[in-house]
Amino acid sequence: MSLFRLDASIREDGSTSRALADLVEKHWQETAPDAPVSRRHIGVNPLPSDAWATALAAGATSDTDRTEQQRQALTLASTLIDELDQADAYLFAVPLYNFGPSQHFKTYVDLVTTDPRMAPGTATVTAGKPGVLVTVQGGNYSPGTPKEGWDHATDWMRRILEDVWHIDLRIVSREFTLVGVNPALDAFTDMADQIKGDAEHRAREHGRSLTIQNRAA
Amino acid sequence: MSLFRLDASIREDGSTSRALADLVEKHWQETAPDAPVSRRHIGVNPLPSDAWATALAAGATSDTDRTEQQRQALTLASTLIDELDQADAYLFAVPLYNFGPSQHFKTYVDLVTTDPRMAPGTATVTAGKPGVLVTVQGGNYSPGTPKEGWDHATDWMRRILEDVWHIDLRIVSREFTLVGVNPALDAFTDMADQIKGDAEHRAREHGRSLTIQNRAA
Repeated sequence: MSLFRLDASIREDGSTSRALADLVEKHWQETAPDAPVSRRHIGVNPLPSDAWATALAAGATSDTDRTEQQRQALTLASTLIDELDQADAYLFAVPLYNFGPSQHFKTYVDLVTTDPRMAPGTATVTAGKPGVLVTVQGGNYSPGTPKEGWDHATDWMRRILEDVWHIDLRIVSREFTLVGVNPALDAFTDMADQIKGDAEHRAREHGRSLTIQNRAA
Repeated sequence: MSLFRLDASIREDGSTSRALADLVEKHWQETAPDAPVSRRHIGVNPLPSDAWATALAAGATSDTDRTEQQRQALTLASTLIDELDQADAYLFAVPLYNFGPSQHFKTYVDLVTTDPRMAPGTATVTAGKPGVLVTVQGGNYSPGTPKEGWDHATDWMRRILEDVWHIDLRIVSREFTLVGVNPALDAFTDMADQIKGDAEHRAREHGRSLTIQNRAA
């Protein structure tokens, strides 16, 4: 029962997505003591910005004609898929940045998707395995708020993780992480505390559920 | 009357977004002969994957304490904003990739947004200027199609270009660019031809409109 954890925050200290994911991991570990965790920090150690296009070009080139750079891109893609293949469960911690997906997570998805083991329309090595997506947002883009609809990341991440990679996904989201940081949001302190508490509750719950295959909805 | 053009396709030959943007540019140029065009090809010459986080860290560091890497990231961000500031009109050609935004365009937006001249909630150097966004999709994600809702990029790009950067934006989109490439889509040949023709019509029309400030909706 091993876990693959991916963090996309560009911060190490003070990252709210990391803190929530730590909670998921801790409660998963209580159900699976001594189980191994493999990790990748794509926000802090980003994948090269030309790896995806290079891997695609390599895929269209016969093995003997590939450049050294193309071989490296294929090796990197293959390493990423091995990490997914070898894990029994997943934890993705990906913040909303500028109202859209993390650039580093999009780069990761693009590169992973070049491999035949993870291409759209295939069985994928991740199919049916349990996963948790932790996502955090500085503001609040929930239904009924003035900026409803400004979260353009979560639906895309669900599309990839659920519909393309076929992961059995649960989501832990926390809005208003800038309350307490940006004084203009001080009026929302109580609401933000409630949101934080709810998110932590879900993090514990979904962390424990990661060992359960075919979890009920 | 100068134009700034940005291409995010990872291909040079056979890129359908480039071909449509060429048409926009050609018809803009007929209305503004000899006007200069500045260009950036972020799909082929990608921005470094650590520039955004480095620029953010630089912004939180006093000038005298900045590292050489931080200075370079700020200089790069500043160059990108100068390109936007000095242009009178914009042409963005950005394909849909893996059902979401181009990783390279997201990286560009993140880096541009670090500069006080382009931050969310500010007047921005692009405000009120005319622009065209060209976007292309291999499949068809329009309302009524089986994959309606799988385009998770266009709404986010509009959000940034219109609501955050305040560009007076027109859109040229072309779906089904894989018809004629992927034999499984051969049944849609007539529909794809119609879509292509409509897109080219809009490209010509919106190209001509780029010289007109405050275009009627």
